[in-house]
Amino acid sequence: MTFTLPKPVLESTVLNDSSVDYAPLKQEVKVTFNYDVHFTRDLFNPNNPLLAKVLLATREGVKKAIAFVDSGLPQASEILEKIQAYSDCHPQALNLKAGSTLIAGGEAAKNNPQLVEDLQKLISDAELCRHSYVIAVGGGAMLDLVGYAAATAHRGIRLIRVPTTVLGQCDSGVGVKNGINAFGKKNFLGTFAPPTLVLNDANFLTTLDDRNWRSGIAEAVKVALIKDAGFFDFIVNRTEALVNRDLDAMQQIVYRCAKLHLDHIAGGDPFEMGSSRPLDFGHWAAHRIEYLSNYRLYHGEAVAIGICLDSTYSYLSSLITKGEWQEILSLFKALGFSLYERELSSFVHQPENPRSLFKGLTEFQEHLGGELTLMLLTTIGKGLEVHQVNLDKYRLAILMLQEADL
Amino acid sequence: MTFTLPKPVLESTVLNDSSVDYAPLKQEVKVTFNYDVHFTRDLFNPNNPLLAKVLLATREGVKKAIAFVDSGLPQASEILEKIQAYSDCHPQALNLKAGSTLIAGGEAAKNNPQLVEDLQKLISDAELCRHSYVIAVGGGAMLDLVGYAAATAHRGIRLIRVPTTVLGQCDSGVGVKNGINAFGKKNFLGTFAPPTLVLNDANFLTTLDDRNWRSGIAEAVKVALIKDAGFFDFIVNRTEALVNRDLDAMQQIVYRCAKLHLDHIAGGDPFEMGSSRPLDFGHWAAHRIEYLSNYRLYHGEAVAIGICLDSTYSYLSSLITKGEWQEILSLFKALGFSLYERELSSFVHQPENPRSLFKGLTEFQEHLGGELTLMLLTTIGKGLEVHQVNLDKYRLAILMLQEADL
Repeated sequence: MTFTLPKPVLESTVLNDSSVDYAPLKQEVKVTFNYDVHFTRDLFNPNNPLLAKVLLATREGVKKAIAFVDSGLPQASEILEKIQAYSDCHPQALNLKAGSTLIAGGEAAKNNPQLVEDLQKLISDAELCRHSYVIAVGGGAMLDLVGYAAATAHRGIRLIRVPTTVLGQCDSGVGVKNGINAFGKKNFLGTFAPPTLVLNDANFLTTLDDRNWRSGIAEAVKVALIKDAGFFDFIVNRTEALVNRDLDAMQQIVYRCAKLHLDHIAGGDPFEMGSSRPLDFGHWAAHRIEYLSNYRLYHGEAVAIGICLDSTYSYLSSLITKGEWQEILSLFKALGFSLYERELSSFVHQPENPRSLFKGLTEFQEHLGGELTLMLLTTIGKGLEVHQVNLDKYRLAILMLQEADL
Repeated sequence: MTFTLPKPVLESTVLNDSSVDYAPLKQEVKVTFNYDVHFTRDLFNPNNPLLAKVLLATREGVKKAIAFVDSGLPQASEILEKIQAYSDCHPQALNLKAGSTLIAGGEAAKNNPQLVEDLQKLISDAELCRHSYVIAVGGGAMLDLVGYAAATAHRGIRLIRVPTTVLGQCDSGVGVKNGINAFGKKNFLGTFAPPTLVLNDANFLTTLDDRNWRSGIAEAVKVALIKDAGFFDFIVNRTEALVNRDLDAMQQIVYRCAKLHLDHIAGGDPFEMGSSRPLDFGHWAAHRIEYLSNYRLYHGEAVAIGICLDSTYSYLSSLITKGEWQEILSLFKALGFSLYERELSSFVHQPENPRSLFKGLTEFQEHLGGELTLMLLTTIGKGLEVHQVNLDKYRLAILMLQEADL
C-alpha cells in the first residue's frame, strides 16, 4: 500500500516504537433479538387473553407500561380507555401507568421534534425501567415516532407495536426501524431497534377509509414482485375481494406479506450496514414524489407509482417481458391505484434542480451510504440489484406511465 | 395459566375464530458488529499511517468524514487543524468535510440537548451518507454526546472514537454505549451503538492534569477486582510509576483494561437486555455521589469511592477477608484517591429523601430494569451478583470508609 508523501506541515516526529507492542484488539459483538408477531381481532377486549398471556409468559412479574394511541384513529379516546380497562382486568400481567395518552400521528407528526421530547418526558415521568413496555397503537408514522422515543429512553424501553393500518401490519410495523424527519430529510433521525412484540388486530383495518385500505396493499405487491411469484398470483386472484373490502382476503395478504418481510429481515442485513436495501424496490421515486406532493400522496400510493416506474424501467431494459410489465400495471390499476401523478415529471430535464425527481436517487444513496444500489425486476418474483441508471430511459418510462394512467 | 375473570366493562364479544388460523410469526434477528481498537502515539501526525491504513483497508473509496474535537482539550484548535492536514496529506483515504468543529465536552455538555441537535445538523449539512465517518476526539462525556448524535443521524453513521482520557481509552471509549442526561437522569437518553473504530493515542494522556490522570485508573482497578486478580497485582506493582506519571506503565494498564472490558462485552449481554451489569461494580453509589456533588467529583473519583463502599460491604458480609478489604483500600489510597466524600452520607437515615444516597439503588434498578442486581466481591478477581441489600450494613460501611479516609 502506498501513501502520498505528506508535506511537512507539522514538525516531523520519530514515532515511538513502543506503540508496536500493542497489537490492535479485535472486537466482535453479536446481538440476537427475538420478537413474535401475533394476529388477532379485538385485541383490547378484556376477554381476549392474548396480550395478558404473552406478558405473563415472560415471567418477570407485572409489567409496567405506558400506552400511546394515535389521535388520528377513529375513537382514539375509547381505545385508550379500553387499554386501561384491559389493564384493570389483568392486574397480574399489566400495570398501565399514568401518562398514557393520545399522540399525534400522520407524516406531520414526524416533522415535529418536540413530540419526541414530549414522549421521552412522559416515559421518564412514568418511572418506567428498561424492562417496562411502551404500547404504541397507531399508523406507520406514529409508530415510527413513538418507536424512536422508546428506543432512546433508557437506551431502549421495550416496545409493543399495535399497527392499525395495512401498511403497518404487513410492512413497517413488523420491521426493525423507527425514525422522524429532520432538516428536510425523511427519516433522517432514527435507530434500528427491533420491537419486543407486534400485535396485529385485524379489526382496526375495518376502520380505514378506502385510500388507506388500498394504500397498504402496495407494499404487499412490492414484496411479491421481488420475492414470491406465487404471492403475486395470490393477490391477483383476490383483487375483487380486496376492492370490495373483504377482511378475510386482506388478513391473508397481511399475513403472507408480514412473513415475507420478516424472513427478508432475518436473512439479510437487518441493520442495513451494507449499501443494499432490496425491500425498497420502487422506493427511491416513492419517497421523492411523496415529499414533492407535500404528502398529498400517501406512502402506499407513492410506492405503487414508484414500483410501476421501476417495473417500466425493467421492461425498457429488456429485463422483464411486455406481458409481465402489463400484468404489473394492470394489477395496480385494478386495485384502484393511480399509475402516474404530476410529481413524477418534476424537473426531469433538470436533474440538478432542487425539486427534480432525480434528486431522489442521490438522497436514496446518501441515506443508505456507499454506492447507488437500486432494485429492478428480472421476472415477477425476482429482483436484481443495479448500480447505474440511465436517466433518458427513466424519462421515457415516465411518459409511458403517464399514458398508461389515462 | 389462569386469568382474573374480567368485569364486563365492555360489551362481551364472541371472538372470531378466523384468528386461530394465523399462528404467530416468530422472528429472530441476529446482528454482528466488528470493530478494532488500535493503540498508537501521535495519531494525527501525517507520518503516522494508522488512520489512513485502516480507512483504506475497507476498500470503499475515499471516506467522507466530519471531525468533532472536544473544546476542553489543551490545544483543541490545533488538533482540528492537524486532522485537516492529515486529510490533505492522505486524500485517497480521507475527505474531511466542512463543518468539522470544536464541541463542548465535560458533564455539562451532556445536560444540553441543543448540542445533540447542533451535531445532527452539522452531520446533515455535511451531506454525509451512512458509510461516512464521524471522528470524535475527546473525553468520555463528549464522546457520549457525539456518539448519540452519530448513532441517530441516518439511523447510525460510522463512528471513530479517539478517546483522550484514561477512562475513555480503557473503558467507556471502547464500549458500545452513548448517551446524554435528560429530565435530571444520567444517561437517560442514548443508544447501544458499537463504534466502527477506536484509536487510542497515548500522547493525549500526557496532557491530562493529575486528577484526570488518576481518575481513569479507578475503572482499571474495578475490572481487575471483579475479573482478574493478576491484573490487580499488576496495578499494585505499578502504583509508584503511576503516581509518577509513567506513560509506559499507564499504557500497559490501559491496554489490559481495554482488553478485559472488550472481552466482557463480547461474552456477556452487550445491549444489556437482562437486569445484570457486572461491569458496573461500585457504580450505583458512584453515579449518585457524582450527581449529589454537582459533578465536583469526577466520575473516576466517584467510582473509586463506590468500589471502596461495595468492597467494605462485601467484607461486612463475610464475602472477602479483612486482608483483601485492606488491600483494596490501600491501593486506592496509594494511588491518591479519597475513600470518602461527604455525599456518601447524604440522608442515609432517610432513604426516601430525594437527596438520599440510597435513591441511587432505585435509580440503578430503574435504568437497568427488572430486579435490583448489584455486584459484590467474593475475593479479589471475582464478583458475585446479589439482589437484596441491607441498608444498616451500608450505613456501617460508610462510617468505616469515613474513618479509613482520615
